[in-house]
Formats: sequence, structure tokens, C-alpha cells
Amino acid sequence: MNHFETIFDFFTKKLAGEIEEISKRVPEKLYEPVIYSLNMGGKRIRPVLLLMAYQMFRSDLEKALPAAFAIELFHNFTLLHDDIMDNAHLRRNFKPVHIEYSNNAAILSGDAMSILSYEYITKCESVNSKEIIDLYTNTALKICEGQQFDMDFEASNNVSVDDYLNMIGLKTAILLATSLKLGAIIAEAPVEDAQLLFDMGYNLGLAFQLQDDLLDTFGNQDIFGKTIGGDIVSNKKTFLLITALKLAKHDQLTELNVWLQKINFSRDEKIEVVKKIFSELKIFEITQKKIEYYFQIALNCWEKINVDLERKEGLLSVAKNLMDRQN
Amino acid sequence: MNHFETIFDFFTKKLAGEIEEISKRVPEKLYEPVIYSLNMGGKRIRPVLLLMAYQMFRSDLEKALPAAFAIELFHNFTLLHDDIMDNAHLRRNFKPVHIEYSNNAAILSGDAMSILSYEYITKCESVNSKEIIDLYTNTALKICEGQQFDMDFEASNNVSVDDYLNMIGLKTAILLATSLKLGAIIAEAPVEDAQLLFDMGYNLGLAFQLQDDLLDTFGNQDIFGKTIGGDIVSNKKTFLLITALKLAKHDQLTELNVWLQKINFSRDEKIEVVKKIFSELKIFEITQKKIEYYFQIALNCWEKINVDLERKEGLLSVAKNLMDRQN
Repeated sequence: MNHFETIFDFFTKKLAGEIEEISKRVPEKLYEPVIYSLNMGGKRIRPVLLLMAYQMFRSDLEKALPAAFAIELFHNFTLLHDDIMDNAHLRRNFKPVHIEYSNNAAILSGDAMSILSYEYITKCESVNSKEIIDLYTNTALKICEGQQFDMDFEASNNVSVDDYLNMIGLKTAILLATSLKLGAIIAEAPVEDAQLLFDMGYNLGLAFQLQDDLLDTFGNQDIFGKTIGGDIVSNKKTFLLITALKLAKHDQLTELNVWLQKINFSRDEKIEVVKKIFSELKIFEITQKKIEYYFQIALNCWEKINVDLERKEGLLSVAKNLMDRQN
Repeated sequence: MNHFETIFDFFTKKLAGEIEEISKRVPEKLYEPVIYSLNMGGKRIRPVLLLMAYQMFRSDLEKALPAAFAIELFHNFTLLHDDIMDNAHLRRNFKPVHIEYSNNAAILSGDAMSILSYEYITKCESVNSKEIIDLYTNTALKICEGQQFDMDFEASNNVSVDDYLNMIGLKTAILLATSLKLGAIIAEAPVEDAQLLFDMGYNLGLAFQLQDDLLDTFGNQDIFGKTIGGDIVSNKKTFLLITALKLAKHDQLTELNVWLQKINFSRDEKIEVVKKIFSELKIFEITQKKIEYYFQIALNCWEKINVDLERKEGLLSVAKNLMDRQN
């Protein structure tokens, strides 16, 4: 069993105990969707990263557990509310809370999860408790800002690559970064190492999201687990489309815009045409390079973390696994 | 100018400055509804109570301001989400955020307000900061629980007076109680006084909500500012209806149940019949007594607070004003 799996199993077991505790709270209807959501599973990547970062500096993993629960609760809270806003119909192969229960349940139980996450994060006994709570709150607010930018971009025709990178930084990368940094802060690691872990997480997060965009268009449908081309069909302003719109000239640009504006179209035809233009513009290669660029920065940060190799090699392999995924 | 007005003006002025700061944040679309909601006004009763409690023990009011902002932000966040859940069409004579903007805006900007309130509450520099944040989080979660109970009760035919009092305790009274207690804790007041203020606020909150129920049925429409009888028309399980269902016998109970189950009816006729039954059962008098009962407990707590009369008489007059209101 590798390091990730060991910590994943440790966390999953502890989380099950915590879910048991939450299930004793009333009113039941408030906490049922919380438990449903936590039981949906998922990769638990954020809490595991937090625990791995902690373990680079200290071995008494229990001490970092409340923060790991907090991060997982907060992440799930954002999914509950995002799924209402995005009108999502599937989440990790389950019905999202707003469909399984109701919109109201998803709103109110989401609110409770967000507050419950504060109950956990403030349980961390640490000399750094002010720094912990400030980082946590700052991150939580940035995630809301990222979600708003994402919604704004849907209605905008003027989104630059920098706008996009800023948005995914807020919406996705910062929570990976903060997870790693929190682990370090709770372990009372040196400030420089905590910052390196943050930077590593942030760049890994950007690479991860760009990879997600790439898989949505160029992935293998059987492995990816969801329909390929969803982003193309919905005109989602991903790195791929934004870059294509920037590079396309004359006929290509005209054709791209025609397809972006079409209301009635064959789904497969749209995907085929847009992918053809993407290929002509070498969008796959450009995105791949961008992913490698951010992944390399993440690796550089990792290298500089001032702990023995045996304490940090687990994190390297997790980072590599994250990027090797095809789903 | 009385004590309440002095502090109200102080708070309102400081809040305006804070709104100015919030308006500089981006994305605009996230923070616009926050500002819209804060600018709707309202009595600012919670932050003013917090500041009044603080001023019983210390004079440097600025120190308690972040907590006062936090409480006002949190209260407004709950209104944003409650108004979606209750499908409300009017809030303080303005369109609620979900109508003026959109459901998504009310969800996400509400989330941001909730987190922003944590930014403020954690700004309180105090030796009691752990106690402050724990009380705050505990209260926030209880308010969610109260809202869920309230929604549960709509679908239940088995709500007791105790259930109801517990629900309004969670949904309404606890935030008044916590506002007062936070003021005391931030001022580093003796533990006994902080607890007396909490108990005073809680009982005042119960009296206040029961008064609200009473006005909805027996108020003067011109002064009350909203249509009388809304609770009767919607079968809202208030103290009045629950008590009537408990006391009604034979024909009265049958008639009451007939009207509760009617789907098509004349609004005015339903209000008239139900009010007639309420009168026969002396519901007005019973509720009035219950209000006086809780108000008296609040006064007893106030009396025991161990500070000079001149430092606490302002709070007494606010409490009395709250109960004298007709809207």
C-alpha cells in the first residue's frame, strides 16, 4: 500500500466515525443531506493532501484531523450549492442533493455544512490558530469569488487567458494550496516550507484543472466516465476555447463563431468541427505545454521543501498520480 | 437622543464605511447583492444590542465593532437564504435579493456574507477569542437548525407548544441572546454577567417572537405594515394556532380542522372564523400572558446584572421599546 492509500484509509475510517457523530444531531432533515453528501465518496484529495503535508513535519496525525474534516466538509458544501446553481444532474454517479432531496434542503444543509466546517477548523489546537482561521476564511471567500467569476464568464465574450487562470486559481487551485499549507501550519512547520507547499498546491491545482479541460475534449470517453465534448457543446470558456479564439484567423475564426452562436445544431457535428479547428490551431499541444509548465513549478516547489526525501516522496507520487489520471 | 439612538447612529455610520470597503471587492456581481442587502436598513437591533452590552463594561466601543458587523452580516445572510426557501416577495419594503437579482445570486452572495461574517468575528482581538468564535459558530448552526424545524413544522400536524418554543428559540431568540453575550465577552465582563445577558436576550427574543405572532393576527393593519391574518391564511403553526388546537373541544375543534384543510376559501372569511374561535378560547389573553412571562424573566436577568444602574438602564428601555412596538 502506498503512502496516499495509507492516509486515505486512515482518513476514511475517521470520517466514518465523524459521520456517525453528525447523524446524532437534530433536526434529522438538516443533517441527512450532509451525511448523504459525505457518503458519496470522492477522492478525498484535499484532506489527504492536508494530512500528508502535516506528516512531513510531525507524526501525530490525529492533531490535524479536525482541519482535514473541515476542508472536506467545506468542499462538499460548495458542491451542494454549485450543483443548484449549475443545474447539475449527476455528482459522482449519484443524484445531487438538490435532486435527491430538494433545492431548499441543498441550500440549508449546505449552509449548515459550511458552518460545521468552522466548528471543525476551530477545534485545531495550535499556537497558530489565528493564522489557521484567517487562511481558512480567506480561502473560503476566494472560492465564492471564483464561482462568481465562472458564472460571469458564461455571459461574457471577453475572457482572456489570464482571467481564466485567475478564475480557476480561485475556484479550484486555492483549496489544494490551502489544504497543503494548513497541514504545514498545524504541524508548526517553518514558514518557508508552508509557503512552498501552498505554491506547490496552487500550481498543481492549475495543472489539474487544465488537465480536466483537456480530458473533457480529448479524453477517452470510456475511461473519462462522462460524455466527451460537454464543454464544447455548452461553449464553456475553458483554456482551450479562449486560446483558440485568440489564435484563430479569418475563416477559422468565422467558423468558430458561427458554431458558438448556433442554437440548433447536431451535437456530434459541433464537437467534430470545433475539435478540427482546435487541432489545426494545435490547442492540444499548447494546453499540454501549459499543464507541464505549471506542473514543473509545482515540482520545483516540492524540491525546495526542507525535509528529508523519505518524508516528502509520498507527496511527489500523489502529485504525479493526479496528473497521470485519465478521469 | 436616547441611548439606543446614539448607538444606532454610531453603528450606522460605521457600517456605511464598511459597506464602502466591501464595494471595492471583486467580482462586483458577488458583492453587489451583499451591499444591496445591507443597505435595505432594518432596525439593526442585534448589533446595537451587542454594542450596548459592551458599553455596560467598557467605553472604547470601536473594539466591539467587528463583532457587531459580523452579527449584522450573518443575520442578513440568513434572510437572503430564508427568502428563497420561503419564496418571499417583500423584505423591508424592498424586493428580496433572489427577486431583485436571481436565486443564484442570493445563494452565492449569501454564502459570501456568511464567510465574510467570519472575517469580521475573527478580527475581534480579545483574550476570549476562542470563546467568541465557539459561541458564534454554535449560534450560527443553531439558527440553521431552527430554520429546518420551522420548515418541518409546516408539514407536521403534531407540533407541541414546547416544540414551537424550542424552534423560535433556535431561529430567533438565540441570536439576540448571543449578541448581548458577545458584547459582554468582548468587554471581558464577569462570566455571570455575560450569562445573565444571554438569558435576558433569549427570553426577550421569545417574548418578541410571540408578540410578532400576536400582531400578525390581532395587530392594527395600518400600524403593523403588513396584511393581518397571513399566519391564519397559511395555517402557520404559531403559538396561537397550536394553543387553540390544544384547547379546542368538540365543535370548535371540528370547525378549526375544517378550515385548516380547506383548499379553496375566502381569505377574509377564514380569518374571521379562526379569530372567532381564538377569541372563544381566549388565545389573545393566553399569548399576552406568555409574552409577559418571558419578558418578566428577561427583566429579572437584567436586574441581576452587576453594574451601576446608569450603565444598564439604556438596555432596559430598549427592551421595553421592543415590546411596546406595534409593528
